[in-house]
Amino acid sequence: MSHSARLRRLHAALEASPLHAIVLNAGPSLPYMTGLHVHLSERPVVACFAPGMSPTLVLPALEAQKVAHLPFGMDVYTYSESLPSWDTAFEAALGHLPEGAVIGVEDGVLRFLELRYLQKAAPTAQFVSGEDIMATLRMRKDGAERALMQEAVRIAEEALRNTLPHVKPGVTEKEIGSRLIAQMLNEGSGGELPFQPIIAFGANSANPHAVPTDYAAREGDLILFDWGANNEGYFSDMTRTFVLGEPDETVRRMYQTVEKANAAGRAAGRPGATAGSLDAATRSVIEAAGFGARFVHRTGHGLGLDVHEPPYIRAGNDALLEVGTTYTIEPGIYVPEEGGVRIEDDMIITEHGSESLTSFPRELTILPL
Amino acid sequence: MSHSARLRRLHAALEASPLHAIVLNAGPSLPYMTGLHVHLSERPVVACFAPGMSPTLVLPALEAQKVAHLPFGMDVYTYSESLPSWDTAFEAALGHLPEGAVIGVEDGVLRFLELRYLQKAAPTAQFVSGEDIMATLRMRKDGAERALMQEAVRIAEEALRNTLPHVKPGVTEKEIGSRLIAQMLNEGSGGELPFQPIIAFGANSANPHAVPTDYAAREGDLILFDWGANNEGYFSDMTRTFVLGEPDETVRRMYQTVEKANAAGRAAGRPGATAGSLDAATRSVIEAAGFGARFVHRTGHGLGLDVHEPPYIRAGNDALLEVGTTYTIEPGIYVPEEGGVRIEDDMIITEHGSESLTSFPRELTILPL
Repeated sequence: MSHSARLRRLHAALEASPLHAIVLNAGPSLPYMTGLHVHLSERPVVACFAPGMSPTLVLPALEAQKVAHLPFGMDVYTYSESLPSWDTAFEAALGHLPEGAVIGVEDGVLRFLELRYLQKAAPTAQFVSGEDIMATLRMRKDGAERALMQEAVRIAEEALRNTLPHVKPGVTEKEIGSRLIAQMLNEGSGGELPFQPIIAFGANSANPHAVPTDYAAREGDLILFDWGANNEGYFSDMTRTFVLGEPDETVRRMYQTVEKANAAGRAAGRPGATAGSLDAATRSVIEAAGFGARFVHRTGHGLGLDVHEPPYIRAGNDALLEVGTTYTIEPGIYVPEEGGVRIEDDMIITEHGSESLTSFPRELTILPL
Repeated sequence: MSHSARLRRLHAALEASPLHAIVLNAGPSLPYMTGLHVHLSERPVVACFAPGMSPTLVLPALEAQKVAHLPFGMDVYTYSESLPSWDTAFEAALGHLPEGAVIGVEDGVLRFLELRYLQKAAPTAQFVSGEDIMATLRMRKDGAERALMQEAVRIAEEALRNTLPHVKPGVTEKEIGSRLIAQMLNEGSGGELPFQPIIAFGANSANPHAVPTDYAAREGDLILFDWGANNEGYFSDMTRTFVLGEPDETVRRMYQTVEKANAAGRAAGRPGATAGSLDAATRSVIEAAGFGARFVHRTGHGLGLDVHEPPYIRAGNDALLEVGTTYTIEPGIYVPEEGGVRIEDDMIITEHGSESLTSFPRELTILPL
């Protein structure tokens, strides 16, 4: 879909909403709408979209070169290193909005920094959450976006394949993490990874959000990888768990339960299913096996230009999955002091069901000592 | 300095300010104060500090393992995946503050997401910028922090040394970028780099914030690296510019001017100097050479747990440099369509002047074809 088509869809969505306008700042929605890549920094960048009006853009003068390739006309207001020019630019960019305008912003992206300039520039405006509008626009991926995500998956899977042979007793989580990242970059990942890979050995794997440490792998350890690549801004996000040497019976049972839960979650995806029903599909398997209390997080989340985006695959979420929705299925079982198992795939809803973009084997794999 | 000492300094700073409390969310100040490393995600994490009261912490239940190592007592309120529990946790964490409390937040870190939960939990509170308080605490680095930053510089410099031999006609910016990142990880950088390295060849170097492209280097190109490493959360941020083959006279004049400006900026750092005086030192050199209009950004910025933090080395900034302040000196000259030259060093104010943490050669270096 062209950027102009996205602009028409955004205007239509705004017209069907109580919002007069939406303001985007540096984050994934800004390049999605404008093709403009800027970093979140102490210099605010915002774009304002309102139906029937020319979009406006505020950015620092030293980024001005980037506007040469905007995909549609925008009124651009730059500011210098002198602070009063910041106010002037924001006032110009919001000046065409009506008194008391209701302006949507993205909750997880807009900062107090931008909000203060926006409020000064439009003191009668009301700022509200507009993230649902952007999320809805971005949720359904078209064929080109699917291809970009498929490549992000390929990069991640190939990188893991090249890293696994180095997992031996004595190697540290940090060492394996560096190797995995270097492999992703070699395979073509963008330098800004979706997140720092989680490499967790042994008891560390019991922490779903572990950070790599100097802990060195030992025989019998669970070896958990949660990692993803960046392909032109589109992310993959996968998890695979291995065992270094022979697993004991508890680990086998944990693994088989998660494997079954993952399969059930993947099978449940189809157009019209609720996000919550996919959570129920994985959770019921884990509860039936007696591990319910050890599955301490939701089943998954939307994936695309954000590593976590709607729809959130969690209990009670009535959001309906539509063709083109991309999301993760990542059930896990975590036993404190012992370890954790998680298997995470990247899924896309198709006309008749769903498909996994990830194809790395899911069955229990014992890494040789 | 211990975390308990930092807590005492924060309480003292709050008592000397109009603020009743300060709220930190996921970002560098949170681990600085609490040792707690959490990622910015759609699940808010906040800590609230108020003199005479026990600090409070709100975080998702699935991060609860991390509180085992808090350096001082905190009242911890966790929330589950069910949204009403989020409100409950925020209300508990702010419940001990007086009516109408003035609460500081970090402008560039706090998001609309956290702000809405905070405002619901403390509807009579007034939220204001508290970033100066945190910036002042963090600005003066102690010996341990200096050592951490010195190591971040070493990692970056060694990585560049190992990457430079690969810069030849035909190699792309992206290829060199991947190599440089892999080298930094090999040297021990944390996986979360301070920023995606800027690798800009030829005319691309005229854009101070260029992103690596598929452009392939040609004979005579300027070759600009702006990169840094992460050592335990402390960052380096350097720039070096080379020429691939013989430079022409214009490039030589640009380079020599920037080199002189960089030296003047480095020499101007001493306790009690204003940040603005360092900007004047570099800018006057560049203006005298007739390139004033081509130096389109400030001279530098503070550096530490943030890649851009106070003090900002810009015209008119009256902030005084103190012993232990760490910052960059990075004058540049940018000629659109031609190219740019920037030389950036990481500096620290010492008792009698300033020292450069960076030692990579600064003189014009011609890369062999």
